[in-house]
Amino acid sequence: MRTRAAVAFEAGKPLEVTEVELAGPKAGEVLVEIKATGLCHTDEFTRSGADPEGLFPAILGHEGAGVVVEVGEGVKSVKPGDHVIPLYTPECRECEYCLNPKTNLCQAIRSTQGQGLMPDGTSRFKTLDGDPILHYMGCSTFSNYTVLPEIAVAKIRPDAPFDKVCYIGCGVTTGIGAVINTAKAEPGCRAVVFGLGGIGLNVLQGLRLIGADQIVGVDLNPAKREMAERFGMTDFVNPAEVEGDLVPYLVNLTKGGADYTFDCTGNVNVMRTALECCHKGWGESIIIGVAPSGAEISTRPFQLVTGRVWRGTAFGGARGRTDVPKIVDWYMNGKIEIDPMITHTLTLDEINHGFDLMHEGKSIRSVVVY
Amino acid sequence: MRTRAAVAFEAGKPLEVTEVELAGPKAGEVLVEIKATGLCHTDEFTRSGADPEGLFPAILGHEGAGVVVEVGEGVKSVKPGDHVIPLYTPECRECEYCLNPKTNLCQAIRSTQGQGLMPDGTSRFKTLDGDPILHYMGCSTFSNYTVLPEIAVAKIRPDAPFDKVCYIGCGVTTGIGAVINTAKAEPGCRAVVFGLGGIGLNVLQGLRLIGADQIVGVDLNPAKREMAERFGMTDFVNPAEVEGDLVPYLVNLTKGGADYTFDCTGNVNVMRTALECCHKGWGESIIIGVAPSGAEISTRPFQLVTGRVWRGTAFGGARGRTDVPKIVDWYMNGKIEIDPMITHTLTLDEINHGFDLMHEGKSIRSVVVY
Repeated sequence: MRTRAAVAFEAGKPLEVTEVELAGPKAGEVLVEIKATGLCHTDEFTRSGADPEGLFPAILGHEGAGVVVEVGEGVKSVKPGDHVIPLYTPECRECEYCLNPKTNLCQAIRSTQGQGLMPDGTSRFKTLDGDPILHYMGCSTFSNYTVLPEIAVAKIRPDAPFDKVCYIGCGVTTGIGAVINTAKAEPGCRAVVFGLGGIGLNVLQGLRLIGADQIVGVDLNPAKREMAERFGMTDFVNPAEVEGDLVPYLVNLTKGGADYTFDCTGNVNVMRTALECCHKGWGESIIIGVAPSGAEISTRPFQLVTGRVWRGTAFGGARGRTDVPKIVDWYMNGKIEIDPMITHTLTLDEINHGFDLMHEGKSIRSVVVY
Repeated sequence: MRTRAAVAFEAGKPLEVTEVELAGPKAGEVLVEIKATGLCHTDEFTRSGADPEGLFPAILGHEGAGVVVEVGEGVKSVKPGDHVIPLYTPECRECEYCLNPKTNLCQAIRSTQGQGLMPDGTSRFKTLDGDPILHYMGCSTFSNYTVLPEIAVAKIRPDAPFDKVCYIGCGVTTGIGAVINTAKAEPGCRAVVFGLGGIGLNVLQGLRLIGADQIVGVDLNPAKREMAERFGMTDFVNPAEVEGDLVPYLVNLTKGGADYTFDCTGNVNVMRTALECCHKGWGESIIIGVAPSGAEISTRPFQLVTGRVWRGTAFGGARGRTDVPKIVDWYMNGKIEIDPMITHTLTLDEINHGFDLMHEGKSIRSVVVY
């Protein structure tokens, strides 16, 4: 079949909206009509050429929602008409990782996914001239129709609006999951969140959800304050306005150090600050942000010997097929908010404008509605 | 009263065995006759002058066992005749730290202990000329008699031999506790232990105790192998004999990476290797060794984002008054071994020879018996 898609033909070039050829689902795969997709920094990281593992030409996008149109042989967990969210971290429920309760990093299709291919080692996409186009993070939601492995779709309730819950495909789950799955933060805790963008806001509301007592937000941009307060921030700190070192300031503000801190910046210096403002004895720091290629974190080992813990999280430690439908329910039941974070809605033709908005700091999330 | 003690009058100088004056216990304190004391690398770290927080003149030693001789006003948990092990990490059971199950770092007397003083801000020791001598780590077990806060003694069974269980005052508890309290390692796990000295051997037997499936020991000295196997090591790796990078070698040896790794070297490069040979998704690395002043650990944050966890431990995460008596029972019941690790028994007059043996790598533990 033919479908419209925004194709990244070359690193650093704008996406090109065009028609492409899409082959139908093979065994264990599903064809999904994408109804909406968010634009995430990770897409831009790859598009720009900064991602050393980026492959081209490819159809980017990994934060979508849509409807199953057709299923391949052997597919049992979804059927045509089911509403789904694509999962860049699949959940096969059979591999060593899925069977270990300590991780969500299903490895079932990792090697082919990393090469931009479906599990059989081929791509379903090609240009109208017949040249191959790669998949991206196993999702390629910048195409109106896409093919996904069955283990990489989460079936969700049919009444959830696509243009909002698509954000659960990455940002919402990453932020909230970091709090509940990775940190396992408890009611009454004190927390510090570095970076109040699309991920940071979701960490804030995750902390509000679990009943944190103090939720400190740290950002160099004072314009972030209002929205952050709406999502549960109790204290705002602008490092540019702090005299002296930020660590003792935050330790003092949190009465001895934070129980949990979250880096949502990808800056390795911020990651160090996030660790060191943790409470002696038990504070845990969780790295969410993606650092530039080759960048390293450092600290004195004394920080760990005196009880601080350094962790990271991918997709918020969530097991997608199991956890994503629950988070959709939380949204529909009003336990979490998404609407105020979707600041811009675009057509597929306007997708490059969405990346401009991201660079200009004008958007929290831009969503393309097909 | 007068007591014999090995005094560190100056950094870098040999200890001087001499008589000193010891004042009796004040309220909340106990006078203990030390019967035996181990010589630990930490004592030597301070004696040598390498410890930036070292204070002189002081009576070092923190790994002892003895008998309560006299108790100060208000002391209820021990009485004269009780056998005890001094605790450099006390357990007041009342401070914010003791009341938090995530840490063992009781802070009740931290500031005075760090200054070499009893909780009232004074020292009980002085020279026969009346010049003050400081306490060390709140213990000063290199004195035949010493005064300790009540919260810094663990009451143990009376039939335990002092010249063996003194080692539970530091090395044994640190190594075994790192496995059971900090890592909380489970039966069937795979582990790697870096550095097979006095701490590393106890990590090995901690891993054997909890039923680890694979216990890899890493040391540059092949002479460590025999003793390490006695304490449960299943695989020995000499990095000097490994071609190429040690990380992939250890990942391969442990079938994908270790569930738990332990640094017992204090070398920050080894700490990085220990983290990076952990299993993706869930491997945890625990820092036990004390790094040189100013040294820093580093890694790519990707190591943490893909599920590895970096921790540290002090006194093996043990709460001394609660846990030390249990470990003494384990020794007396044959669940753990100590005797083969006590390689040398010395008199107090021979104490400097004990440090020579440490430097020459000839001893695992030298114990001074009074």
